[in-house]
Amino acid sequence: MNFEFASRMGKVPRSFVREILKVTEDPEIISFAGGLPHPESFPYQDIKEVAVQVLEENGAQALQYGATEGYQPLREWISQRYQRMGLKVDPEEVLVTNGSQQGLDLVGKIFLNQDDAVLVERPTYLAALQSFGLYEPKFHSLALDEDGVDVNSLKMALDEFHPRLFYAVPSFQNPTGISYSLNRRKEVARLLKDNDTVFVEDNPYGEIRFMGQDNPPVKAFLDESILLGSFSKIVSPGIRLGWITAPGEVMDKLITAKQASDLHSSLLSQMIVHRYLSDYNVEAHLKKIRRMYKRQRDLMVSLIKEEFPEGVQCTEPEGGMFLWVTLPEGMSSLELFDLALKEKVAFVPGQAFYAEDPQHNTLRLNFSNSSEEKIKEGINRLARSIKELEE
Amino acid sequence: MNFEFASRMGKVPRSFVREILKVTEDPEIISFAGGLPHPESFPYQDIKEVAVQVLEENGAQALQYGATEGYQPLREWISQRYQRMGLKVDPEEVLVTNGSQQGLDLVGKIFLNQDDAVLVERPTYLAALQSFGLYEPKFHSLALDEDGVDVNSLKMALDEFHPRLFYAVPSFQNPTGISYSLNRRKEVARLLKDNDTVFVEDNPYGEIRFMGQDNPPVKAFLDESILLGSFSKIVSPGIRLGWITAPGEVMDKLITAKQASDLHSSLLSQMIVHRYLSDYNVEAHLKKIRRMYKRQRDLMVSLIKEEFPEGVQCTEPEGGMFLWVTLPEGMSSLELFDLALKEKVAFVPGQAFYAEDPQHNTLRLNFSNSSEEKIKEGINRLARSIKELEE
Repeated sequence: MNFEFASRMGKVPRSFVREILKVTEDPEIISFAGGLPHPESFPYQDIKEVAVQVLEENGAQALQYGATEGYQPLREWISQRYQRMGLKVDPEEVLVTNGSQQGLDLVGKIFLNQDDAVLVERPTYLAALQSFGLYEPKFHSLALDEDGVDVNSLKMALDEFHPRLFYAVPSFQNPTGISYSLNRRKEVARLLKDNDTVFVEDNPYGEIRFMGQDNPPVKAFLDESILLGSFSKIVSPGIRLGWITAPGEVMDKLITAKQASDLHSSLLSQMIVHRYLSDYNVEAHLKKIRRMYKRQRDLMVSLIKEEFPEGVQCTEPEGGMFLWVTLPEGMSSLELFDLALKEKVAFVPGQAFYAEDPQHNTLRLNFSNSSEEKIKEGINRLARSIKELEE
Repeated sequence: MNFEFASRMGKVPRSFVREILKVTEDPEIISFAGGLPHPESFPYQDIKEVAVQVLEENGAQALQYGATEGYQPLREWISQRYQRMGLKVDPEEVLVTNGSQQGLDLVGKIFLNQDDAVLVERPTYLAALQSFGLYEPKFHSLALDEDGVDVNSLKMALDEFHPRLFYAVPSFQNPTGISYSLNRRKEVARLLKDNDTVFVEDNPYGEIRFMGQDNPPVKAFLDESILLGSFSKIVSPGIRLGWITAPGEVMDKLITAKQASDLHSSLLSQMIVHRYLSDYNVEAHLKKIRRMYKRQRDLMVSLIKEEFPEGVQCTEPEGGMFLWVTLPEGMSSLELFDLALKEKVAFVPGQAFYAEDPQHNTLRLNFSNSSEEKIKEGINRLARSIKELEE
């Protein structure tokens, strides 16, 4: 049989990162490639206790169909958490999704017509390119500096392209680890106010700040924006729960799209996560994760400074799970990848993260998933590979 | 702010059924409207035991990111179950989804360009119209008789419209309860063989046959088709797990689309369901469900025959969860709905289930979710309402 697929499928290659992850399944390889939390960060004893309670006390409800919008007490918990940050988000403005990834798909589905302009950061979160890409927009990317997106580029792009969406990860961005300064957040909000471009703020790492001054989401200064969140980094990614907040008019469309996509997210999982968040000490759990990741990040940054050749640059993020490395001009991280694999160390070449015109001398390193021993050994191997490539 | 949405959102109203379900939240209302399994059919004690085992023994794996394709042992279980039905489906031809609803969304996403022709049954599963509808196809519907889809209509539609997809629920269809005869299954397969129309066979109720001769899926006679399955009716809908099987070339695209949609389905849920299916007596559990639903179906059918006025017709399904009632010509089930609500009994007016040109004198009754007492009282009230409408 001759299968003919929709034209949108021609636009989206299978994730490069997934292909890399397959290569790195070899247990001898030290992988800084994935974007995985550290398994020690999972509260599985607590989750086990909570699962028993939920199934004993509300088993019939937990296993039955639920509301598309999500489990109401979980929506309320999310709303209250925002309130503590000084953000007003009603429970009715929250839709529970399968991780924030599904939030991106739903945003693409409800907003994007073919050839609509979408602004992204340069580089940007790869999976957002995939989710939005299936709705066939035209991407335009905006330069990042260490304080966030370049405001002049944003202003010009808004004027020139009248984009439908601007997608950004203002806190501890994947892949760079860059976080917008308070001032930059306000400037972005100011530019987008009274503009028909919808700001889509992805914030999966916001709770994982381990140093520096905390900043509120851009949404604090830009009421009518969309804000995505995730339980992947604070509870568990395998349980696949996140959320999307949006103004009422947008929420109606998101609910319609969510319903058509999968009716609702697992009610059992939602009830487990809600009970865990309500009955256990989440702050202590977050503190533990932050402490762990800070140690790993500090170690990786200091080893890079010691061991990598001069001319290699590296971001120094105050939170999240990633570092961004820039090799000297002219060097290719794809070539480095091949050399590094022989040394049994892996990362993601930077080119995967560009919507257009990739910069070939960049790469992403994950520090959250590796023990200190692995970080020491892995950075050592990677330093050797870079020196080999230089020769 | 002036939100502009994608044109596809103009095509899909919010589910009529959901609006009805909201009306029926009043606990005094006896509702035959939803499509819910009976809560007594949920094995929540077993699920609780299994959840504890999974989290104790494989907690770190269950809470970590997983493969987009699904939990391999679960894919293997599905493959083996098909093998026992005489169907050859490799584990690699199985993608785990969030219920079969997500399978429909993914099929739409990978196959449908705007204005592509899609064949559906008349009436058809409402949520398929929603999922596919977001990809803006043109629906054409095919008459059903008690043995399944009308073969002449199918033949003519294939010739005339060169459809991209033909979507059908050949076993205990939602909404009618109709099941294709063995012969009809073979005829459908014969017509679709060597045809570029992809057959999409939705089979959420296949395991819930409580009388009559079992028939294999149409896929048994049509190798290169797509077959959707669900754990919603055999384990739990709230856990939101189903699957889609497709030939390798299609599977590649489905995986790309699934990845962009939500990375993967909850690994914790997949591991729980897999362990339950492997370690517990699923056959005994299915027998219990079938016995329960048969009693409810028998009661509802016999009461309808006794109490509804002459001229009202009703299907007599051999499985599944629904009956389809046809009122005398000229009567409107929407008007009946209003009268019935006053009597505190609810159902879904048939018009929701038509892709085009709805037949207004039809309605769907669910028998799986109500106790025998509720069925007695509810059918009694509904009979009164029909008589009132006749006057």
